[in-house]
Amino acid sequence: MNKNTFVVIMAGGVGTRFWPFSRAEKPKQFLDIIGCGKTLIQLTFDRFKEQIPTKNIYVVSNERYKNLIKEQLPGLAEDQLLLEPFQRNTAPCVAYASYKIASKNPEANIIVTPSDHAIFNDAEFMRTINTALVTSASSNKLVTIGIQPHKPETGYGYIQFMDEGEQEEVKKVKTFTEKPEQELAKKFLESGDFVWNAGLFVWQASSIIKAFEKFDKDNALLFKEIGEAYYTSQESIKVEQAYAQAKNISIDYAILEKADNVWVVLGDFGWSDLGAWDSLYELREKNEEANVIEGNVTTYDVKNCIINGSNKKLIVVEGLENYLIADNGNSLLICKRGNEKQMRTIVKDVKLNKGEEYL
Amino acid sequence: MNKNTFVVIMAGGVGTRFWPFSRAEKPKQFLDIIGCGKTLIQLTFDRFKEQIPTKNIYVVSNERYKNLIKEQLPGLAEDQLLLEPFQRNTAPCVAYASYKIASKNPEANIIVTPSDHAIFNDAEFMRTINTALVTSASSNKLVTIGIQPHKPETGYGYIQFMDEGEQEEVKKVKTFTEKPEQELAKKFLESGDFVWNAGLFVWQASSIIKAFEKFDKDNALLFKEIGEAYYTSQESIKVEQAYAQAKNISIDYAILEKADNVWVVLGDFGWSDLGAWDSLYELREKNEEANVIEGNVTTYDVKNCIINGSNKKLIVVEGLENYLIADNGNSLLICKRGNEKQMRTIVKDVKLNKGEEYL
Repeated sequence: MNKNTFVVIMAGGVGTRFWPFSRAEKPKQFLDIIGCGKTLIQLTFDRFKEQIPTKNIYVVSNERYKNLIKEQLPGLAEDQLLLEPFQRNTAPCVAYASYKIASKNPEANIIVTPSDHAIFNDAEFMRTINTALVTSASSNKLVTIGIQPHKPETGYGYIQFMDEGEQEEVKKVKTFTEKPEQELAKKFLESGDFVWNAGLFVWQASSIIKAFEKFDKDNALLFKEIGEAYYTSQESIKVEQAYAQAKNISIDYAILEKADNVWVVLGDFGWSDLGAWDSLYELREKNEEANVIEGNVTTYDVKNCIINGSNKKLIVVEGLENYLIADNGNSLLICKRGNEKQMRTIVKDVKLNKGEEYL
Repeated sequence: MNKNTFVVIMAGGVGTRFWPFSRAEKPKQFLDIIGCGKTLIQLTFDRFKEQIPTKNIYVVSNERYKNLIKEQLPGLAEDQLLLEPFQRNTAPCVAYASYKIASKNPEANIIVTPSDHAIFNDAEFMRTINTALVTSASSNKLVTIGIQPHKPETGYGYIQFMDEGEQEEVKKVKTFTEKPEQELAKKFLESGDFVWNAGLFVWQASSIIKAFEKFDKDNALLFKEIGEAYYTSQESIKVEQAYAQAKNISIDYAILEKADNVWVVLGDFGWSDLGAWDSLYELREKNEEANVIEGNVTTYDVKNCIINGSNKKLIVVEGLENYLIADNGNSLLICKRGNEKQMRTIVKDVKLNKGEEYL
């Protein structure tokens, strides 16, 4: 890859689905969810650093995570760290990074990636990314990565593609679909022309800027105006002003669902968005009793459980099956496994009735 | 009661049956187990303070609990706090207190009481104690208090009494029995001449000293020798020397099972030795779902559980019935309720495999 290729790692999310393991002050991208000794954002960075110049890897995140990022990615220069004063979904985040990079390098090709997903075959992943880069670099195509689905998952968005396309694995997008009900998800899977939306995008800076100026003029203008202040001491003040007015909207909704030059590259590199405790159960090593255990834990007659603690605390559990136990800081959660809806209720209730300090 | 009546509160125990709520550094006598705003040792002290001069109420405990006692019973003078350098069961504890009190007041009558039991009818309790005082003050009788049993409890020792006795509620003791098996406990209950051994004793200082010098000469000699050093700055050094040689033996085994002048006063004042988590469940107030809850706790579909935490930590529990959850300091326990044997195994394993710092 050449010096025109940039990576934008989106790391501003406040994941609460691993609560209380992930916390507002340290969301999942900054945790070693996989149990491999590296955090998800470190794994994301490492995935690209062999092929993309380190100085071209940018991170967009909330100001509150500045120190966490510097700690976990010490190789980043100040200029590569794009700090958002408020959380404003992905459209402002992509607009900010795109106008900033384009102001330095109008020829830039940009890979946009989440910071909190798991990818199991990095080589195959980079092969897919390269296909997307080749596809977008010679055209104004906005390219997404679609994951070959292997079950009727209701927790993901889907992309439907058309048969149009020169290559087997590069397809024109027909529609984006929000998380479907079980029955619809089964139909998607059977139809063969739906793939999971992994939130991975590849395009030229100029292509996405053109799309912003067509479909999301307000956000486009805010970040275009910063202009020559990018890469100067004025940037943070100007960005703060822009965010104060920025629309809270996703890149999918603002651009991709509206544009007609969206393509998808089909990928099959082992992927999980790590959206819930059970995805952690699936990918972690199980002990003889099929428990996933982290921390200083003793069990008696415990099966199929996730027990997530730390070495500072002894956790003794007796007589449980299919439960989640997560102890972190000022919060302890004990609940049945596999009920994502209940989990969302719990986190909502905690926020409402107990206060932000527990999230 | 007169100035010759003394109370000796035994507070040296390291209860681990409420682990991890009770800890070696703060055993159950120093905790508000009842949930009434007072600790068990405070309740014990208060039970006597209306009728016994405060300066006659002594506490025997381990040196490590000195500050806890001073904090919880600020009215105690240094002389009333008898500190044991090592844990040595109840015989040395009673010998120490008896010789010390007798050195000041040879006419003393002594009430010996545990510090970690629950008593629900203090007036009836004091009436029983008064009967015991009257019985022992005019004779050399060693008087115990026997609790009228209302179920075939296997966790208590039993006292069998004879029909001999001038009063209905004062009986001569036939035998002491260790914790019985279920079948035997049923027979005890049916027979009508067995009562629970509450570990409460009333006697003249001279009577118990006479018994020590007959049945436990070694311990007797050690504490007799301290003699004039009691109530002086030399006491603690001499006591330390005595404890280094003292026999680790209970007052029941050393004296009461051997002496033939042991009597029992039958009491019925609502009593629990608070020997296990389930006794706490029984006496605590239950919420609508029959849960006993302490701390900052939210439950969903939780019934018949004990959840014991603190206000510093949010505990969220979903989908459990008949469980115990106790979170305290460096330890968290989650187990089925009502299995005392399992509980002992757990605490033994923690001590052995994890270390004393978790007890």
